Amino acid sequence: MDKPMHDLRQYLADRRRLVDAALDRYSAGPDWPPRLAEAMRYSLLAGGKRLRPILVIAAAELFGLTANDVMPTACALEMIHTYSLIHDDLPCMDDDDLRRGRPTCHKVYGEAMAVLAGDALLTQAFAVMAEQAFVERVGPERALRAVAEVARAAGAAGMVGGQVEDLEWEGRRAGETQLRRIHSLKTGALFRAAVRAGGLLAGAADADLERLDRYAAQFGLAFQIWDDVLDVAGDAAKTGKGVGRDAKQQKSTYVSLYGLDEARRRAREAAAEACDALSVYGENGWVLRSLAEYVVDRES
Amino acid sequence: MDKPMHDLRQYLADRRRLVDAALDRYSAGPDWPPRLAEAMRYSLLAGGKRLRPILVIAAAELFGLTANDVMPTACALEMIHTYSLIHDDLPCMDDDDLRRGRPTCHKVYGEAMAVLAGDALLTQAFAVMAEQAFVERVGPERALRAVAEVARAAGAAGMVGGQVEDLEWEGRRAGETQLRRIHSLKTGALFRAAVRAGGLLAGAADADLERLDRYAAQFGLAFQIWDDVLDVAGDAAKTGKGVGRDAKQQKSTYVSLYGLDEARRRAREAAAEACDALSVYGENGWVLRSLAEYVVDRES
Repeated sequence: MDKPMHDLRQYLADRRRLVDAALDRYSAGPDWPPRLAEAMRYSLLAGGKRLRPILVIAAAELFGLTANDVMPTACALEMIHTYSLIHDDLPCMDDDDLRRGRPTCHKVYGEAMAVLAGDALLTQAFAVMAEQAFVERVGPERALRAVAEVARAAGAAGMVGGQVEDLEWEGRRAGETQLRRIHSLKTGALFRAAVRAGGLLAGAADADLERLDRYAAQFGLAFQIWDDVLDVAGDAAKTGKGVGRDAKQQKSTYVSLYGLDEARRRAREAAAEACDALSVYGENGWVLRSLAEYVVDRES
Repeated sequence: MDKPMHDLRQYLADRRRLVDAALDRYSAGPDWPPRLAEAMRYSLLAGGKRLRPILVIAAAELFGLTANDVMPTACALEMIHTYSLIHDDLPCMDDDDLRRGRPTCHKVYGEAMAVLAGDALLTQAFAVMAEQAFVERVGPERALRAVAEVARAAGAAGMVGGQVEDLEWEGRRAGETQLRRIHSLKTGALFRAAVRAGGLLAGAADADLERLDRYAAQFGLAFQIWDDVLDVAGDAAKTGKGVGRDAKQQKSTYVSLYGLDEARRRAREAAAEACDALSVYGENGWVLRSLAEYVVDRES
């Protein structure tokens, strides 16, 4: 990667600005109860890296669309991610008080409102994705394929299924196979859906979608291993959550399985494999490749 | 209505059988965690009148499609209805132990699983609706209009918004305007989406959609007033829930506002107006008209 020519930091800042503006528009409606809208926006507009929307955008750009062409789907992925955090933080689930350095949604708005804010965000994600059909260069057929892709990844065979398995293994030490399975469902499925949806909306061929899929699977693995690394070796002021939480919860992590150094090595290996999957695109693949490198270099 | 020629009871039994079989297929997947699938199916396949799917079907049939043509959307509406019941019953919401005469989902599977079963049903509803595009006589364009319609009705400007307003009025006596608003959002929006989606999928013209909308609004009102009547004057063995729950919860109802006789009269008036909205279709409109009459005659 040619650093002076390709500035990932600038790219991320630009795309994040577009995404944040669109999320702001998509998370308000004239008939929404004000307190509900407030709770939804409290969690949705709390910053965050916007990784999933940016993966949608970068994949679509690789095949000739612009960020604005795929903005509805990009924002839908962030809404689904946010709803899952709100519900995961509930007292009956992980019972977390802090998220991104701020009190969690139910701490501020109460449990009932947090459940409903999550429900409304998930529903709004699909309302917004339906708008994707009106982008001329996308059209209803590709838009619906993206809806199917995202819904599958977010549901019982994907993210929600992963959360269920995670809860079922609570208090027990999962082995490597089970740990990989939980993460590939709980966080990996949505990363894959983001990258694949970007490709689908842009009309990428099956061979391209397969490459994107290989990239996204390794990207997700790298991301998750690095998350576990940050939980042990990260700076709480930067990650916005307590350090050592996984160990306290007796959870298996990649660090508890491999040790810190080996976990770091495996994260970087996965990132390298993600990059390899896109080598055929040469220079054009720089954003997705740089994103994979960024993920195993981040401090939060 | 010519009773000997048109047998609503037979119609309902036939369509319910089709809907139940499709719901059974749509609520299972090879990769779903078994306990999650069980919790979803416990609530989804617990019987029930299947009114929303049947409204989708009846509206689509009026414009030349068959029940099977619109089965994905019909089932999606029931999944969304069921998820909303599971979440509404949670301890942090209405805290109900019984539903359709059986322990509620969280009583059987625990709170965390109930939240996730609801999330998975809502997500699966949209996965299933995406399949609607593959019905040749429907196609992706109409399928996406139906997705938009259903998502809007289920979200912050519809059902979830209504649940929020309902919670906000808890313990206070809402006046007639507020009561109508809460119900038109909380239950009315999904009835309207069901009927309109049926019409949209069948390619009904705007004037037809307007008639369907007027029908559905009055249908929803009739349904809700009658629900309040059953809460006071119903037979607990038939309704499957306790009698007098609304009064205990200090909730405004149509009965507390109007008295029992006047509430009955208004329910029947709304049903008659629903029928009037479809008079232009003559004989072809018999199913939807009979459904409106059934709603203010039911014992559960």
